[in-house]
Amino acid sequence: MALLDSIASPSDLHGLSADQLDQLAAEIRDLMIRTVATNSGHLGPNLGVVELTLAIHRVFDSPRDRVVFDTGHQSYVHKLVTGRHADFGTLRKEGGVSGYPSQAESEHDIVENSHASTSLSYADGLAKAYAIRGEDRHVVAVIGDGALTGGMAWEALNNIAIAKDSRLVIVVNDNERSYTPTIGGLATALTALRTNPRYEQVLDLVKKRLNAVPGVGHAAYDALHAVKKGMKDALAPQGLFEDLGLKYVGPVDGHDRAAMEQALANAKRFDGPVIVHAITRKGQGYDPALRHEADQFHAPGPFDVQTGAEKPKGKIWTDHFSEAILEVGARRDDVVAVTAAMMHPVGLDAFAQKYPERTFDVGIAEQHAVTSAAGLAMGGLHPVFAVYATFLNRAFDQVLMDVALHRCGVTFVLDRSGVTGDDGASHNGMWDMSILQVVPGLELAAPRDVTRLRELLDEAVLVEDRPTVVRFPKGPPPADVPAIDRAGRADVLVREGEQDVLLVAVGSMATTAVEVASRLTDQGIGVTVVDPRWVKPVDPAIVALAAEHRLVVSVEDNGRVGGCGAVLLQTLNDAGVRTPFRLHGIPQEFLDHAKRDAILARIGLDAPTLAREIVADVAALDRGLSLVEVDHPA
Amino acid sequence: MALLDSIASPSDLHGLSADQLDQLAAEIRDLMIRTVATNSGHLGPNLGVVELTLAIHRVFDSPRDRVVFDTGHQSYVHKLVTGRHADFGTLRKEGGVSGYPSQAESEHDIVENSHASTSLSYADGLAKAYAIRGEDRHVVAVIGDGALTGGMAWEALNNIAIAKDSRLVIVVNDNERSYTPTIGGLATALTALRTNPRYEQVLDLVKKRLNAVPGVGHAAYDALHAVKKGMKDALAPQGLFEDLGLKYVGPVDGHDRAAMEQALANAKRFDGPVIVHAITRKGQGYDPALRHEADQFHAPGPFDVQTGAEKPKGKIWTDHFSEAILEVGARRDDVVAVTAAMMHPVGLDAFAQKYPERTFDVGIAEQHAVTSAAGLAMGGLHPVFAVYATFLNRAFDQVLMDVALHRCGVTFVLDRSGVTGDDGASHNGMWDMSILQVVPGLELAAPRDVTRLRELLDEAVLVEDRPTVVRFPKGPPPADVPAIDRAGRADVLVREGEQDVLLVAVGSMATTAVEVASRLTDQGIGVTVVDPRWVKPVDPAIVALAAEHRLVVSVEDNGRVGGCGAVLLQTLNDAGVRTPFRLHGIPQEFLDHAKRDAILARIGLDAPTLAREIVADVAALDRGLSLVEVDHPA
Repeated sequence: MALLDSIASPSDLHGLSADQLDQLAAEIRDLMIRTVATNSGHLGPNLGVVELTLAIHRVFDSPRDRVVFDTGHQSYVHKLVTGRHADFGTLRKEGGVSGYPSQAESEHDIVENSHASTSLSYADGLAKAYAIRGEDRHVVAVIGDGALTGGMAWEALNNIAIAKDSRLVIVVNDNERSYTPTIGGLATALTALRTNPRYEQVLDLVKKRLNAVPGVGHAAYDALHAVKKGMKDALAPQGLFEDLGLKYVGPVDGHDRAAMEQALANAKRFDGPVIVHAITRKGQGYDPALRHEADQFHAPGPFDVQTGAEKPKGKIWTDHFSEAILEVGARRDDVVAVTAAMMHPVGLDAFAQKYPERTFDVGIAEQHAVTSAAGLAMGGLHPVFAVYATFLNRAFDQVLMDVALHRCGVTFVLDRSGVTGDDGASHNGMWDMSILQVVPGLELAAPRDVTRLRELLDEAVLVEDRPTVVRFPKGPPPADVPAIDRAGRADVLVREGEQDVLLVAVGSMATTAVEVASRLTDQGIGVTVVDPRWVKPVDPAIVALAAEHRLVVSVEDNGRVGGCGAVLLQTLNDAGVRTPFRLHGIPQEFLDHAKRDAILARIGLDAPTLAREIVADVAALDRGLSLVEVDHPA
Repeated sequence: MALLDSIASPSDLHGLSADQLDQLAAEIRDLMIRTVATNSGHLGPNLGVVELTLAIHRVFDSPRDRVVFDTGHQSYVHKLVTGRHADFGTLRKEGGVSGYPSQAESEHDIVENSHASTSLSYADGLAKAYAIRGEDRHVVAVIGDGALTGGMAWEALNNIAIAKDSRLVIVVNDNERSYTPTIGGLATALTALRTNPRYEQVLDLVKKRLNAVPGVGHAAYDALHAVKKGMKDALAPQGLFEDLGLKYVGPVDGHDRAAMEQALANAKRFDGPVIVHAITRKGQGYDPALRHEADQFHAPGPFDVQTGAEKPKGKIWTDHFSEAILEVGARRDDVVAVTAAMMHPVGLDAFAQKYPERTFDVGIAEQHAVTSAAGLAMGGLHPVFAVYATFLNRAFDQVLMDVALHRCGVTFVLDRSGVTGDDGASHNGMWDMSILQVVPGLELAAPRDVTRLRELLDEAVLVEDRPTVVRFPKGPPPADVPAIDRAGRADVLVREGEQDVLLVAVGSMATTAVEVASRLTDQGIGVTVVDPRWVKPVDPAIVALAAEHRLVVSVEDNGRVGGCGAVLLQTLNDAGVRTPFRLHGIPQEFLDHAKRDAILARIGLDAPTLAREIVADVAALDRGLSLVEVDHPA
């Protein structure tokens, strides 16, 4: 590691020879492979951007110039050359280096959000701000071809194209895949050229328009000039960008550092927005990654460095959903599956293999996923859109207006809901059970175990006149928790002693709640544990149970504000049920990365803490006092 | 009206001669102009699509073939030829014809949502469903060039381009403007052609790729063929679409019905998705509309048919914001304004005129508006994004992840919040105060009058480390309501008699609350009325006041679920304040169109109803009973 140890900041890259830079690239790859092999993390994307990132930091002057990484998991190389290689062994560990850019870590980091397709919008704003303030700074956005399928990127390009004062360099990192091969017309642009049978007519129109628009003299000249060079344009992959009026450099071999530096230097000299089109290979420099055709080690768990073999791991929630949806598909030929570029991560690959004609990968395009699902439903099918909970935020308006308002039977399967942990604030799925509460008619289920996952998915796909949601967390599911009784649509899991405490446990918190119950009964406190199964709408049976107990306690792995507990409290209040109420959930704040269990313990969503707090609440009630005040924000 | 009276359904259009169709078009224009002159509504867009709509209904067979209108306010002509001309005089009146498509009105209507850029996604889903089900039906999507700037449209095009089995005709209604002239690279595509200096290199790459991809023999042939025809492509406006691989027909004069029919018939015969590019003029056939350069009578209030002069109306909230932001701009040269194609409707035109270099119209692109605002803030400016409340839903994820997570000082000004009424379910701004509650750090203000609007806007733009929101309703503001005291950041408006009722009145409900208070004091009930001004976070002073009263009543023009009342209830519960609580807000359902005041009265948010209900609640408490149960959903 001799060379990497000498790189404290990007300026240290300037004195290096070509050989030294090659050696540095090799050291960086080696360190990333060894670290991810132990810590897990994103590997393929970072192996693909080693030379590209080095080139950016040699040509531009961060942090004076700003480098914005789209979908921040491609920022490891950037981290290693901006002073964080010594700590890189702590990658994704609590208190350690984040798997995404982090302003708290470094002045070289700027965008922390992991949601895709945002970089161009940030960069547009930054570059415009510098132009207005008269600051001579460049902004570099690094965006994959996958992220370009997101609508935001299009909105941004459409604006950047006319921002002539913006010193903005867009590096398109084209590896022909996001998680899986990038789909859509963009990807097939090269092979889909068509001819135009109405040339004369169009030419006239263009001439008329050129003459009609004031101040386009130069553009008009360019256009006429273009006619003569027409043949060249016909086969250029940049057609799409240049149709928008964006200056284009490339394509460049993204693993040829010198070529990348040359292209970036050219782009930097241009006084306005420029696209640099780099062709790269995900997993470059690590054979086991390149052998993984499906996702080239996008984000492996711990693995063996020599062989690339991932350490064996048990089945996770996703695997069980994968099996369940396959069974649904066999039973119901009207059920179709939708994914937004996450076929494997959300467990739809088996369904896609068996029913390719009934599976739609729409690209990184959650909005389109939801509204096209509304269209599929209107056309007589039942779509199941499987997506990470945090990414559904992108399509809130579409769920509300396009699905719910139109009473479409669409089922949303939210994977990685609740606390996900390692991937930091923007990956936690802690918002869905709050924002979806406001959607009229929508019904939301939170299975507590895999038996309930199958059961609730089956129930959900039967609903044809409104949206349904099934949400479950990351990781392995708990052992099944059997019900001892039903109450409305809810399951009663525990009924012990007097009716002191009604514990309403949402989804994955049921297992915790059962453990809490045993601690309470040990203390002589009577407890009923109920799993609502369908948390929206609130079941009248739960309202009735609440009226019969001395204390209602809700537990959910969702933000405290506006979630299941909040709506239950509101419903009880509307119903005139004034049983003291204690709400447990995730504090309404952005959580730093750490293991899921560590976070749950830190925020008090573990059995020992919950039991202690409930005992204290019951003791207060026994003494005729109010519940203890909590200091959770909101 | 002889001819229009004979059109009960689209099939009646088939027997008409060209002259009769011209006469029909004239009758339709006349009826639309006269109706909107009285009822208000969308005029310019509908005048622009008369011939286009007639052509669609002559070539396709609705409702077997489905016609999806993007931004449904361009569906008047469609309504008139699908059996609703007799009732058209009731346009936008309670119980009358909706200003948007409505499934309840007609089997010819399908998409009711007025939010832009959705039609292509719906159409993609519908066409795929028909293909899977083996139904021989066409889907026609009508989308304006303005709506094409929305990211969803790009996501959809990217998918439609590879949906070779879809019988989908996309009619691009290109009038070069959404509300105001369409902006961005898309709009300037024709004048922004560039040349490619690396032809040889690109050609090699293309050849390599063509050879590498299995099964593209035909495409490869097309590509090589295209080389010879290259010059034609260089100037074709369809470049953008054809780069995606979409079949293109046009451009066609959208006011030449026969040409439109010919183009549509050609498109219909093609066995896959096709774009028909129609050039139209908003306001066509009505001189006063064409004279209105700014928006060609997009959505006028009542006006004089002869002169086009709009009936005089008083200043609305928007006008006061317009003045206030102008003053802020004069004082603070770091304040910049952002709009999503709504410069005039949100009142930014004066600011834009005075500070053009500090104003950004991003097109119909709320996601980009928000994230580029985050970039502007990171670059040292303070952006103010003015937008209709309902449209901010489109950018919830960006507010949460791109602004709040990054602690950016961005101010959101939400116009048309609460019940807007006439424009139906999708225009009501009843969601913002619920979904924004979950955003950590965000602060939200709801001014009760124009003095508070100025005051709160001034306070908001001073906050540099978190998002701030200022929201106000549609229409004229009420007379100022002076404060008699301050409590924390809240204003005390009334303090009469004993501390019986604490009335927490959000924003525009303050005026109503003061009237309610006077009715309560008439009944000998003591009342304190407080306007929180900043409704998020909850002010500790309000918690303290709640503890001192016998009954807390919250009133807001936002959905009941998860709104200001709900969060106040939750906060009081956390704080151990068990004062009986009554929550008044909009029932959580999609509201049919009607006048704002009529809707408020129907849902019980008027002073007489509120006063009656509070008197009943106080009476129950006097008798030692619980509050009466309410049957509001959730």
